Amino acid sequence: MHRARFRDPAGSIREGTYDPASDTVAFAGEEYALDDPEIDVLPPTEPTKIVCIGRNYAEHAAELGNDVPDRPLLFLKPPNALASHGDTVTVPEGKDRIDWEAEMAVVIGEQCKDVDADDAMDVVAGFTCMDDISNRDDQNREQNWVRGKAFDNAAPLGPVLATPDEVPADASVELRVNGETKQSSDREHLIFDVPTLIEEITTYLTLEAGDVIATGTPEGVGPLSDGDTVEVEVEGVGVLEHDVRVP
Amino acid sequence: MHRARFRDPAGSIREGTYDPASDTVAFAGEEYALDDPEIDVLPPTEPTKIVCIGRNYAEHAAELGNDVPDRPLLFLKPPNALASHGDTVTVPEGKDRIDWEAEMAVVIGEQCKDVDADDAMDVVAGFTCMDDISNRDDQNREQNWVRGKAFDNAAPLGPVLATPDEVPADASVELRVNGETKQSSDREHLIFDVPTLIEEITTYLTLEAGDVIATGTPEGVGPLSDGDTVEVEVEGVGVLEHDVRVP
Repeated sequence: MHRARFRDPAGSIREGTYDPASDTVAFAGEEYALDDPEIDVLPPTEPTKIVCIGRNYAEHAAELGNDVPDRPLLFLKPPNALASHGDTVTVPEGKDRIDWEAEMAVVIGEQCKDVDADDAMDVVAGFTCMDDISNRDDQNREQNWVRGKAFDNAAPLGPVLATPDEVPADASVELRVNGETKQSSDREHLIFDVPTLIEEITTYLTLEAGDVIATGTPEGVGPLSDGDTVEVEVEGVGVLEHDVRVP
Repeated sequence: MHRARFRDPAGSIREGTYDPASDTVAFAGEEYALDDPEIDVLPPTEPTKIVCIGRNYAEHAAELGNDVPDRPLLFLKPPNALASHGDTVTVPEGKDRIDWEAEMAVVIGEQCKDVDADDAMDVVAGFTCMDDISNRDDQNREQNWVRGKAFDNAAPLGPVLATPDEVPADASVELRVNGETKQSSDREHLIFDVPTLIEEITTYLTLEAGDVIATGTPEGVGPLSDGDTVEVEVEGVGVLEHDVRVP
């Protein structure tokens, strides 16, 4: 099953059922095309935090000159970073390089702490797509990646939440810029898989229902330009699309 | 004026007026001692994020062998890190060193972005006390301080919010462990003052009403032990007290 959150033409926020075949979302007998200009698609969840994983694909660690970590590299994006499917995302001003990073994102279904990897899929509500937009100028100058990763609009998320049964174990993770494929890998290439990430994070932090884990990006990151259209596609979820404005 | 949030004997969450002279909180004609076991004091705000500042007192940077940064060192604590006045705070298990860090915390009063330092005090609702509890074992091993700083209970906050007029420009910031003074400095020793921090943070991140900026800790940090009682006092605010359990 797929679900989408949206603001309907009357301004009410709804959580409806999404049908991938017709690309429509339905709530209380009303049906809308996902790209209907009368509705606003919202991120499919309202997280209290996004826990992100760095260097979780070997080829991506290599392309930025980094070793593969011996345990998950964690960092945080707060709710101010969220942006929606269909948004034109304005990135920080005056930076030399702000990169795309396609990621499969996990949405947590219940409050949890100290979860064993063996039980971890029980706390997963589903999956969605994220662009982990990264301001390299500042990321490379700071200890904690706050200016680099937590700025407004640094986390376009969506368009829908797909339950775990919809997303294959080897689901592809792809990113296109203006229609050209830039990243292409799959879930099997994650160094630390989803259950391992959930066990590691919940050893330290309580995850709340709706919280997000962004599982890391594959090789092929690169710089965004003003006017770009970015598509992040996770197999079984759908395509998150956003435009870019570089002020 | 001082305000306190608490759960009343009927279980309702209330925001009342706190009277420092009598150490009581009042709501709708009912008055309780702050330490009345029939009420639970809660953090005085519900932040979507806590933006923390590292190395913002020169002597503290030196005591941990660090240089003074050329711009504010930012890191994040999500809401799961919050703990309350009066709590017994359980810290992560099996670590060699988990430290106290007394801080003056700023509570934001309205949603804001791109705030000039000259106007920054207009977005401040007030001040409170925080213990920025720090798991050095992991902090020293990770790029971003997530296991080190964002674990559950890493941010005891409170006991009350004091409006800016209550807190002198040279307000003292002190910490005592089991009655013995360990940290003692004041607001004038901040390398980056509150307006400068607000301008820098809101260049990148929207701050929401209720969000917290933890302004950094002075020299005198040290390791917590099982059974310790910690008091953080900010002049004009009051005393945040919590106990410690090391599992």
